[in-house]
Amino acid sequence: MRNAGEDALFGSNQAEVGDMTGEAFAAALERFSQWVVAFRGRVGELPVMSRVAPGEVSAALPVAAPLRGEPVEAWIADLDRLIVPALTHWNHPGFMAYFGITGSGPGILGELVTAALNVNGMVWKTSPALTELEQVVMGWYARAMGLPTSWFGMITDTASTSTLVALAAARERAWPGARENGLAGAPELVLYCSQEAHSSVDKAAIVLGLGARNVRHILSDDEFRMRPDVLREAIVADLAAGRRPMAVVATVGTTSATAVDPVPEIAECCAEHLLWLHVDAAYAGSAAVAPEFRWALAGCERADSLVANPHKWLFTPIDCSALFLARPADLASVFSLVPEYLRTDTGAAVNLMDYSFQLGRRFRALKLWFVFRAFGTEGIAARIRAHVELARRFASWVDRHPGLERLAPRHFSTVCFRVRGVGDESEDELGARNERVLAAVNATGEVFLSHTKLKGRTCLRIAIGNLATDEVRVRQAFDLVVEHAQLQPVQPGT
Amino acid sequence: MRNAGEDALFGSNQAEVGDMTGEAFAAALERFSQWVVAFRGRVGELPVMSRVAPGEVSAALPVAAPLRGEPVEAWIADLDRLIVPALTHWNHPGFMAYFGITGSGPGILGELVTAALNVNGMVWKTSPALTELEQVVMGWYARAMGLPTSWFGMITDTASTSTLVALAAARERAWPGARENGLAGAPELVLYCSQEAHSSVDKAAIVLGLGARNVRHILSDDEFRMRPDVLREAIVADLAAGRRPMAVVATVGTTSATAVDPVPEIAECCAEHLLWLHVDAAYAGSAAVAPEFRWALAGCERADSLVANPHKWLFTPIDCSALFLARPADLASVFSLVPEYLRTDTGAAVNLMDYSFQLGRRFRALKLWFVFRAFGTEGIAARIRAHVELARRFASWVDRHPGLERLAPRHFSTVCFRVRGVGDESEDELGARNERVLAAVNATGEVFLSHTKLKGRTCLRIAIGNLATDEVRVRQAFDLVVEHAQLQPVQPGT
Repeated sequence: MRNAGEDALFGSNQAEVGDMTGEAFAAALERFSQWVVAFRGRVGELPVMSRVAPGEVSAALPVAAPLRGEPVEAWIADLDRLIVPALTHWNHPGFMAYFGITGSGPGILGELVTAALNVNGMVWKTSPALTELEQVVMGWYARAMGLPTSWFGMITDTASTSTLVALAAARERAWPGARENGLAGAPELVLYCSQEAHSSVDKAAIVLGLGARNVRHILSDDEFRMRPDVLREAIVADLAAGRRPMAVVATVGTTSATAVDPVPEIAECCAEHLLWLHVDAAYAGSAAVAPEFRWALAGCERADSLVANPHKWLFTPIDCSALFLARPADLASVFSLVPEYLRTDTGAAVNLMDYSFQLGRRFRALKLWFVFRAFGTEGIAARIRAHVELARRFASWVDRHPGLERLAPRHFSTVCFRVRGVGDESEDELGARNERVLAAVNATGEVFLSHTKLKGRTCLRIAIGNLATDEVRVRQAFDLVVEHAQLQPVQPGT
Repeated sequence: MRNAGEDALFGSNQAEVGDMTGEAFAAALERFSQWVVAFRGRVGELPVMSRVAPGEVSAALPVAAPLRGEPVEAWIADLDRLIVPALTHWNHPGFMAYFGITGSGPGILGELVTAALNVNGMVWKTSPALTELEQVVMGWYARAMGLPTSWFGMITDTASTSTLVALAAARERAWPGARENGLAGAPELVLYCSQEAHSSVDKAAIVLGLGARNVRHILSDDEFRMRPDVLREAIVADLAAGRRPMAVVATVGTTSATAVDPVPEIAECCAEHLLWLHVDAAYAGSAAVAPEFRWALAGCERADSLVANPHKWLFTPIDCSALFLARPADLASVFSLVPEYLRTDTGAAVNLMDYSFQLGRRFRALKLWFVFRAFGTEGIAARIRAHVELARRFASWVDRHPGLERLAPRHFSTVCFRVRGVGDESEDELGARNERVLAAVNATGEVFLSHTKLKGRTCLRIAIGNLATDEVRVRQAFDLVVEHAQLQPVQPGT
């Protein structure tokens, strides 16, 4: 069917770099595979935190795309020269800021296959295995955490999206007809979470039209757990003022201190007031794959929805967030909307577009499937356990050092601590000093820690979650803190 | 630092499949690379549309994850046995449903590197090159489409998210303080789009608390373009009723007919009424990389926001949606919210979390960078042009066949057509007959087309966007329609 005219039409570019059919693609994939293997081998020797200044990368790149295709070696050269030095390396064994994560080998292989398949699970029919594997693997994950296997699970990009989507369903329950009529004429709908809850809760309230001021950040106790008594008082006060309580977001593993809110009491309170209970277990949910950490999810079986992120502590490359719903119909009642061009007749099949505002859906389940199959749940549990043990050791070193103090209990793989104040040092001065220590430690490039505030006190955080992080690296982080705080060094092994 | 006790702690699993350090990962990557190369070589021979029944894949998988890790060959065997036959192959040259897409070689390589780096661009500091490359590549894309290079660009997962985020900013402008106070006490805010607009507009209205009933689906003209006179009437009517018009979503390349709304007139109307103008150019935006299709974006320079999707017609694996803002401060005024644990002191650096509700951010810019560098803008334009030419030929075949008719003008690479009615066949009967033809054509596995309705008339759609689609395949689609509609065959070449 091709003829000379058409060959001219497709242009001389056809045979060039772009399409990469057949052998050209195979060769390029081999070249990039070598790059990836080499990168993984050397990442631990790179500075964890990037040292570039703002604007450096932009300034080094042309303002326009090239007119003609460039060979693979040109991109690789720029990747090495411009990009890698300007990254903060999350897949580095010294990355212990925020929450340590791992783009594991099996996860990377999953992403490769996902990109090559390039399927889109808008509806069941547009890739049945995408929808079904997603549901199956969510079942595996729920079961592995000891959560109800009757729950409906789906994958979203981030916990921010999972929480937003869940709270949209909560809004519909609190103000039936919100979907159709909007919030004009509605009372103020109120959302409750602890002082320590993630900012995604506030952002969900903004997006959903509840208003940031209608998020009550409930006082937490000395261990940074939401206080159910204060929660109850807040609900009663809002009711008395004519506002409508809508949902409570409990956190299992808060972002700063990894505190675990008292979910059983909160669930009881939600039941009394008919409030939606959403649990943010983005970080700590995966810990429950190891049975000894299942206590953290106590009461969660009473939740209406729960989010846990495989891309945090389940060795899955970002992005991959798991949203579980006790009653998926709650979600479909908000989001199901089938335009003619997406109408399909596949009976009882689940069409995942009915459960979210996002229509396009990557085949994210594949990488998570590979992770489960590569590690097995016992293998995952062993690694979670090892990370927790490393954090326990770090905490014990802090506890034994007179110049350091811990600012929160250690439940999982995260430790909050600081350099102690001296003399009449004010809280502000002490905070600034700790930030200087942090900056100096991170400037070494050996490790990367982060900071937070707990009840107004600045603290440093170490969060272990990378599979390549070992005790040598964790001890190095400790020694660097001691060194840059100009504290008395500790003998190794003590 | 390791000792015997710790080795026991890490468990015997440590050396097994899971982590895939060093050579084990290299070997597995080589194995999967071979798989991917082979898959790309044979995908054109697979049935495009999956033939499984609902539940088949789920039933073939265990209900729980394995306890112990399994070797790579076991996952590959299941991938071949269970997953591939149960996918509808979007990366197949015969995939011409919805919008044809391509997970191109360069894009796949980008995804591989992204997964291996596994960085998260929450803020500039957490991976400077992610943020800066994203901004640079968005600049390349805007420039390539002839859009204002002063615009601020960012990448989101899907057009649904891009539109939602843009309309959150529009809501804030229409009802200042919505972020803080929510919509309780607000008037009804109204959104305008054409009858042909994508369902993501309705979903955004639901999520944002506007209510689905406050979306006005403005009548379109005979060529499925929004009618500005009807838009003006609707705005005036809403104002008279005490409602507050908020934004207009104009579509450049509607989902069904790829119609182009008259953006210059719509922009004029928005200026008069101080309404936010959001342009949905998810599909057709990329066409403008070829200068002869730039007419489609006329007037868009006056938009407040615009979405175009590289994962549609720019050969980039899903997901990758580009959101452009004329004034990014509009977005930051809604979304900027900096918790202590994410506070950084990097001066003028852009922190992309300030522009969305999503905190986590994959390094999606990398694959788009590779695509631009592999093809060059001239190479992209040549391929866009070739797809359009294929669609033009398909349309001409339809036009010349007495048993077929076109139902919409062809502007880009999509053709809407149907088998003509016979005798006293009703519209319903004719629609059902066309659906049966579609089902029969798709059941062959050679091509995959989709359907839609235009002004109540069922039509078939062919949408060309895969780099491997050639005239042989497009002609095959045409011949299959003719055959399964039991029409008179046409001689090749006519």
